[in-house]
Amino acid sequence: MNAPQNLKPDELLNLLRWRYATKQFDPARRITDELWRALEEALVLSPSSYGLQPWRFIVVTDPAVKERLLPVSWGQRQVVDCSHHVVFLAKQEITEADLDRYIGRVLEVRGGTRESMKMYKDFMLKDLVNGPRSRIIPEWAARQVYIALGNFMTSAAALGVDTCPMEGIDPAKYDEVLGLSGSGYATVVACPAGYRLATDKYAGLAKVRYPAEDVIRRS
Amino acid sequence: MNAPQNLKPDELLNLLRWRYATKQFDPARRITDELWRALEEALVLSPSSYGLQPWRFIVVTDPAVKERLLPVSWGQRQVVDCSHHVVFLAKQEITEADLDRYIGRVLEVRGGTRESMKMYKDFMLKDLVNGPRSRIIPEWAARQVYIALGNFMTSAAALGVDTCPMEGIDPAKYDEVLGLSGSGYATVVACPAGYRLATDKYAGLAKVRYPAEDVIRRS
Repeated sequence: MNAPQNLKPDELLNLLRWRYATKQFDPARRITDELWRALEEALVLSPSSYGLQPWRFIVVTDPAVKERLLPVSWGQRQVVDCSHHVVFLAKQEITEADLDRYIGRVLEVRGGTRESMKMYKDFMLKDLVNGPRSRIIPEWAARQVYIALGNFMTSAAALGVDTCPMEGIDPAKYDEVLGLSGSGYATVVACPAGYRLATDKYAGLAKVRYPAEDVIRRS
Repeated sequence: MNAPQNLKPDELLNLLRWRYATKQFDPARRITDELWRALEEALVLSPSSYGLQPWRFIVVTDPAVKERLLPVSWGQRQVVDCSHHVVFLAKQEITEADLDRYIGRVLEVRGGTRESMKMYKDFMLKDLVNGPRSRIIPEWAARQVYIALGNFMTSAAALGVDTCPMEGIDPAKYDEVLGLSGSGYATVVACPAGYRLATDKYAGLAKVRYPAEDVIRRS
């Protein structure tokens, strides 16, 4: 694959500085299908441990569903005013069948034989299905979901789309509204996306970060 | 703030498709100071819950320290062959003093009075210091760290820098090597950064992802 066109450092930083947790979305503005397709693909392309993608993403655009999610989002209006409300789900268990499904997908995309993947599968079995991590799969998967969340916010900013990461939701109630019972997936976090309202006073505030020397150490 | 230059959808996706978990770094290639400064700033700019930044990042470039981290990284050579090895730490506790420090920083950057921040502080106190989340701060902070990890990998790809997310490390041993005892922070995950070796066979493999229709649902 040829190297793509890279950004200059300032171009990247200007995008990251432009991003902020949007408090007020413009309810009249919708993300175009072209941009949204790219953001869905960015979600799909997110990195994850072993490449297992222990997640799903629900894209809520139906006003009635948004309205039902509002009271279980501490009433935060971004849920209804945004263009696309993304709910991030984590897989709650990893079984041998999940590994076989993933390996099947590897062979489908890259070719090869099940035998050639045996060591990789045994390694994952020992770690995720029978090892110590098997007891913390929901949390392990939630962390992967947060990689996707980080990638999503940065990707959206690159396209000029605003987002607001949202932990202030009731995940169990989200599961109810979205009918996730028995799906093997559970809500972890949400992230509305759309366009900031010109009057959102938070848009103009200076970004608050600790000085780099407090946060970054060298060794 | 003026809107920065945005990417076209294909420009973004080409960057994300170019990224992969680098198995072999070129030990002879170093990330330039200019690019590395930008990546450190990208880390600093990562979003986090309440803006609290419950993290630190240790950038390891000393060959002797890399060598000591190698055996506690399952012998993965990326740790020593990369240009900059980033260790992601999560804060292990949030106290009222931490909230006061953060609010102090807000006032320093934006102005205002402590009184004007009282509601925000009380809200965080009720959630993180005295509420149910107070019992899971290490995990809550680890999730924030994974946002930074996701942002870091995407930002690096934007600049043409390779990375490899690395959960296969012994976090407690990392803490020992890096002298973190008593710091209030603990190792969560690592991510070497640098440049792929032309002979890394993984660089040329097709990316394996489930089809979008399996991963993304609409509502």
